[in-house]
Amino acid sequence: MRVMGIDPGLRNMGWGIIDVAGSRITHVANGVCHTTTGVDLATRLLSLYDQMTEVVGQYAPDCAAVEQTFVNKDAVATLKLGQARAVALLVPAIAGLEVAEYAPNAVKKAVVGVGHAAKQQVEHMIKLQLPGAQLAGADAVDALAIAICHSHHAQSGARLAEALRKASA
Amino acid sequence: MRVMGIDPGLRNMGWGIIDVAGSRITHVANGVCHTTTGVDLATRLLSLYDQMTEVVGQYAPDCAAVEQTFVNKDAVATLKLGQARAVALLVPAIAGLEVAEYAPNAVKKAVVGVGHAAKQQVEHMIKLQLPGAQLAGADAVDALAIAICHSHHAQSGARLAEALRKASA
Repeated sequence: MRVMGIDPGLRNMGWGIIDVAGSRITHVANGVCHTTTGVDLATRLLSLYDQMTEVVGQYAPDCAAVEQTFVNKDAVATLKLGQARAVALLVPAIAGLEVAEYAPNAVKKAVVGVGHAAKQQVEHMIKLQLPGAQLAGADAVDALAIAICHSHHAQSGARLAEALRKASA
Repeated sequence: MRVMGIDPGLRNMGWGIIDVAGSRITHVANGVCHTTTGVDLATRLLSLYDQMTEVVGQYAPDCAAVEQTFVNKDAVATLKLGQARAVALLVPAIAGLEVAEYAPNAVKKAVVGVGHAAKQQVEHMIKLQLPGAQLAGADAVDALAIAICHSHHAQSGARLAEALRKASA
């Protein structure tokens, strides 16, 4: 199973792709899509859409997971994040993938073991779990963490389904 | 020139299309795209995307305008609106249209003459300016108002360009 994790943002949108086989995960690719200020919003969203569509087309993930971020700074920042998140959710959905959402604490818990881990701890664990991966930046690290979080949940789901199947057999 | 106006919302997204020839505007179509709660966000955004893409395909507008709404209720509502707005901006941008944005006050001023007009005044003026149009609901009325606002701005721009051309001739 190939999982794509996405850390949404209007200026920087991180993405990370891993392959999952049982409990073994391997790094495939990661990167950050950028848009610049000074152009209108529709153009920026279209640019993000085009870049993310290219990533999905190139790496053909089986499913996607997006961070369920909430910004409480101000309404303008929240609106911007909402717009970026829509692109993050829409691109894999258009490609026919199931899209899961995870809260930041769930992502940290899956990767580090605690929900309130620092950014450096997350990066340290990503480097341990995906040795040799060249990391494109903080947003790409977060995206890989989201992909790993989804792989844990998908495995738990599969184990539960298997146990239920055996119990009812 | 065929103009599409869009009033973004996650539950109800209004759209309205008018034809503009000089100072004459005529109604083409209007409607509201719906999504239901109880399904995940990616599915709702995909549904809005599909419905809006069908409208753009069916009526082939030349340009689009989206209301620049700001909700200050709470972060969750603002995030939802941001996500819906992204679809409203993205669908015409993917179709290669230029997408303009107008603040609610600019829309009301263009249609009613004052920036703080009540909803009923806007609807009354829409009925006067687009006689015979069957209105699909409040969100469709707002979308037609946005389209009319854009037609005024586009005309001013065209008149200015014409005046500048004559002045320099």
